[in-house]
Amino acid sequence: MAPFYAVVAGVGAGTGRSVALKFAKTYPVALLARKPESYESIVAEIQEAGGQAVGISTDLTDPQSVEAAFAVIQKTEGFVGAGLAAAVYNVSGGFGGRKPFLETSLEDLDGSLSANPRGLYIFAKSTLPLLLKAVPTSPNPPTLIVTGATASTRGSARFAPFAAGKFAKRGLVQSLAREFHPQGVHVAHAIIDAVIDIPRTRHYNVNDGAPDGKLSPDAIADEYWHLHQQHRSGFTQEIDLRPYVEKF
Amino acid sequence: MAPFYAVVAGVGAGTGRSVALKFAKTYPVALLARKPESYESIVAEIQEAGGQAVGISTDLTDPQSVEAAFAVIQKTEGFVGAGLAAAVYNVSGGFGGRKPFLETSLEDLDGSLSANPRGLYIFAKSTLPLLLKAVPTSPNPPTLIVTGATASTRGSARFAPFAAGKFAKRGLVQSLAREFHPQGVHVAHAIIDAVIDIPRTRHYNVNDGAPDGKLSPDAIADEYWHLHQQHRSGFTQEIDLRPYVEKF
Amino acid sequence: MAPFYAVVAGVGAGTGRSVALKFAKTYPVALLARKPESYESIVAEIQEAGGQAVGISTDLTDPQSVEAAFAVIQKTEGFVGAGLAAAVYNVSGGFGGRKPFLETSLEDLDGSLSANPRGLYIFAKSTLPLLLKAVPTSPNPPTLIVTGATASTRGSARFAPFAAGKFAKRGLVQSLAREFHPQGVHVAHAIIDAVIDIPRTRHYNVNDGAPDGKLSPDAIADEYWHLHQQHRSGFTQEIDLRPYVEKF
Amino acid sequence: MAPFYAVVAGVGAGTGRSVALKFAKTYPVALLARKPESYESIVAEIQEAGGQAVGISTDLTDPQSVEAAFAVIQKTEGFVGAGLAAAVYNVSGGFGGRKPFLETSLEDLDGSLSANPRGLYIFAKSTLPLLLKAVPTSPNPPTLIVTGATASTRGSARFAPFAAGKFAKRGLVQSLAREFHPQGVHVAHAIIDAVIDIPRTRHYNVNDGAPDGKLSPDAIADEYWHLHQQHRSGFTQEIDLRPYVEKF
Repeated sequence: MAPFYAVVAGVGAGTGRSVALKFAKTYPVALLARKPESYESIVAEIQEAGGQAVGISTDLTDPQSVEAAFAVIQKTEGFVGAGLAAAVYNVSGGFGGRKPFLETSLEDLDGSLSANPRGLYIFAKSTLPLLLKAVPTSPNPPTLIVTGATASTRGSARFAPFAAGKFAKRGLVQSLAREFHPQGVHVAHAIIDAVIDIPRTRHYNVNDGAPDGKLSPDAIADEYWHLHQQHRSGFTQEIDLRPYVEKF
Repeated sequence: MAPFYAVVAGVGAGTGRSVALKFAKTYPVALLARKPESYESIVAEIQEAGGQAVGISTDLTDPQSVEAAFAVIQKTEGFVGAGLAAAVYNVSGGFGGRKPFLETSLEDLDGSLSANPRGLYIFAKSTLPLLLKAVPTSPNPPTLIVTGATASTRGSARFAPFAAGKFAKRGLVQSLAREFHPQGVHVAHAIIDAVIDIPRTRHYNVNDGAPDGKLSPDAIADEYWHLHQQHRSGFTQEIDLRPYVEKF
Repeated sequence: MAPFYAVVAGVGAGTGRSVALKFAKTYPVALLARKPESYESIVAEIQEAGGQAVGISTDLTDPQSVEAAFAVIQKTEGFVGAGLAAAVYNVSGGFGGRKPFLETSLEDLDGSLSANPRGLYIFAKSTLPLLLKAVPTSPNPPTLIVTGATASTRGSARFAPFAAGKFAKRGLVQSLAREFHPQGVHVAHAIIDAVIDIPRTRHYNVNDGAPDGKLSPDAIADEYWHLHQQHRSGFTQEIDLRPYVEKF
Repeated sequence: MAPFYAVVAGVGAGTGRSVALKFAKTYPVALLARKPESYESIVAEIQEAGGQAVGISTDLTDPQSVEAAFAVIQKTEGFVGAGLAAAVYNVSGGFGGRKPFLETSLEDLDGSLSANPRGLYIFAKSTLPLLLKAVPTSPNPPTLIVTGATASTRGSARFAPFAAGKFAKRGLVQSLAREFHPQGVHVAHAIIDAVIDIPRTRHYNVNDGAPDGKLSPDAIADEYWHLHQQHRSGFTQEIDLRPYVEKF
C-alpha cells in the first residue's frame, strides 16, 4: 500500500530525471512528458531500483491531456487511492533561443508562454485540489515546486520571449504561494541560475571549465526534496541555486 | 509639417486619455483601441485644443490588425512621412477579477497573457523598427513606455492570472531595455501602484477617502512625458507611482 | 521675501553642484559640505546667476554640526522665516575603494556607514520636522531626496563596505517613505547606476568612450527637480538612472 | 580527533541555541555571546548529549574581543588543530523597537548598525581566513551563514534603524558571496520572515493563534544545516523562511 505519490511534469535527461529518481525513493512517481522516449528509461531505472513509476505521454499545454493523465495515474497499480504529496513542474519549452528581438517571432513568445505560465496554470489546476486533499494526512506538507531560471528575475538582452515566460511563471507561483500556504500546501519556486550538467551540455565550456562548474541535476533534486521536507512552521518560498564559480 | 508623432495603444477614460492629451501638445497622436467609443471623444478633445489626432479601431492582440493600424497612420494627414518619437503601451485586458485560483479559468489567464506580454510583443514588433529609425533625428530619444501595475512585482493571493500577465510584461520590457537602450531607444516601465482616479472609480472608497488618495491619470501622463524628455545620458528604466497615502 | 528654501548636503564638482544650481532657480539654497572649497564656487555661481545661496562648513556625520548648520541657515538673510521645501542628501563617503574583503579595514566599513546611513539619519532628523512643517503651505510637497548607487541593490565582489553602506541607506529611505508619505512629505531614492561625468572622471574610459556614455550631473539634477515637482497624487519612491549604453 | 568545528555567534533561547545543537551533532561547536547565561545551558545540553562545546563571553562588536575568542577556541580541547567548517552569524542587537522616526535616537541606529553590518564585518574578518583554509579538506564546503529578517528587504514604517541595519547586513553578505563562492566558501543569507517560537514569544498572539503559526527555531537550524550540506555544484545564496500562515 502506497498512500502517497508524486508527479513530475517535464522529464528528460536533466532535472526531471534526477527529481523523479529522488522522490521515487519514498513515493511512487508519475512522469509526464510529451514523448515516451523522455520517460521510458527513467521509469525503468526507478523500477530496477525497487521503486514504482509510471510514465504518461502528456501534452502539458493542453488541459484535456493533463486531465487524462491524472485519470490514468489514479487507475495505475500502486497509485490507486493514493494522495498526491508532491507535484513538480519542470517544463521548459522552446522560445527560439537567444536572438535579437526583431528576429524573434510571435511563435517564440507563444512557445515560452505556453510552456511556462500556461502549462503551469493547467498543471496547478489539476494538482492543487489533490494537494489540498492530502493536507490532513500527508507526512510532509503537500508541495508544488516549480523550476525557474536566471530569466525569472532578470530580462536579459536578446532573451525577450524567454524572460516573458519565466517572469510570468514566477508571478503565478508567488500568487499561488500566498493563496495556498495558509491552506497547508507548500508552493515553492527555484531559480536555477546555471547551465545544468547533462549529456547535452557536457561539451559546453562553462565557467572556464572549472570542476563542478555546471549545476548537477542531482543537487537540484536534493533541494526539491528538501523543500518538500520542510515543516509548515517554516516554508521557503523561493531559492536560488548556482555553482560556486557562477557569476551573478 | 509634423516631423514626429506619438502612438498610444489602449485608450479609454483613464491613463490612455491623459497620456494622449499630454503628448498631443507636442506631437500628432495616433490612438489605438478596440472600439471607436474608446477614442472618439479624445480625438475630438485634442482637435478642439488645436492638436492633431487620429483614432484607429485596432485589435491589439492581433498582429495583422496592429500592422494595418500603422499602415493607416502612415497615410493619415499630419502623420505622412513623420517619424515615431514615442509609443505607449497602456493596454489592460480582462483577467476575470480577483477570485480564488480554483475558480479562475484558462480564459482568465489567456486574457491576461493576451493583453499583457502578447499585446506588448506585437506592439513592440511594430514600433521598435520605427523608433530605431527616428533615433538620429528625434529631438528626444525615441521612447517606448509600458504601463505596469502593483502585480508587476508582487503576486498577490487570488490574483494569479493577473500577476502572470503583469510579471511577463515587466520581464519583456526589461529585456527590450537592455537590448534597445544602447541603440538609442529609451524603453521604460511604470509600476502604477494605485487605484486610478477615473469616472468608474469615483465612488470607490480608497485610502479612507483621503483627498488625492487615488492616482490622477494626468500625473501618470506627466511622468510618461518626463520619461520621454530624458536625455540619453540618463535613462530611467523603471518608476513606481502611487498616492502619498497608499500603503506599500 | 523668500518663503521656501532648499538644502543640499554633500556638494562638490558633480551631482551636488548641479542639484544646487537647479533648485536655486526657484529657491534660495543652503549648501553643506565639510570644506569651504567644496561650496564656495557654487555659491558664487548661483549668486552671479541672480539666485540666493549660502554655504556652511558642516561635518555631516556629527549631529551637533548639522544642528548648528540649520541654526545658521535660519538666521541667514533670504532664509529667515522661510520653510524647507526640499532637502537633498548627496553625501558619499570614503570606503577604501574596491579591494579584496580581507584587505579592507573596519575603518573602510565605518567610513561607508558613517557617510551613508548615519549621515542620512542625522540629516533626516534635522530636516523632516522642517519638511513636515512646510506641508500645508509648500507649493510642491516638501521633498527629501537621497542619492544611491548601483551598490544600493547589488552587493558586488570586493565592494563589501560600500554595499553595506548603500544598502543601509536604501532601507532607511524606504522606511522613511512609508512613514512620511502619508504625512505629506515625499521621500525618494535615486539609484545612480553610472560613472558621473565630472572633471575627475573626464579621462575615464567608460562604455567604450561612447558619446554621453557617462551620466551628466545636470541630468540627475533634472530628475531630482522633477521628483520634487510630483503632485501628492503620484509619488515616485525610487528611480534608477543610467546612460543609454550602460550595461545593467 | 575532531578535524572540524563550527562557531555560532549570537546564542540565546532561540535560533542560536537550535543551530548550535544541530551542528553539534557533527562538529564541536563554539558559542559566542556577551554573557555566560546566554550560552552556559546550551553548552551543558550539548555535552549531555555527548557532543563537544565551548562557550566564550565575547563582545561581538569589538574586533579584539572576537580575535581573543578565536584564540581561546584554538586552544580548547577538542578544537585544537581543527578546521572551521561552519560559521553562523546570528546576532541581533537592540534598535530601540518600533517607534516613530522622530522619536528614535542615534543610539538606536548605532545599535542596529553595530550588531548587524559591523558585527558581521568583524566576524567575517575572523572567520573567512579560517573557512578558506578549510576548503581543500572540509567534507562540505565551508560555510558562512547569516541570519536576516523581514526588514532585510523591506523598510517598513517606524522601523528605520532596524531596516538600515538589516539591509546593510544583506548587502555585505551578497558582496561576500560574490567574492568567496569562487574560492569555495559558501556564503548564505536567511530571511527570517516570522516571529520565532521561543519562550519570550510564547504568549504573543501571532497569525490568529494558528498552530505552528510561529517559526520553530529548530526549523531554522535544519535549514542552516541543509545550506551547509549543499555541494559546491549548487549553492543557494539566499532563502526566505516563514510559517505557512504568515502574510507576506
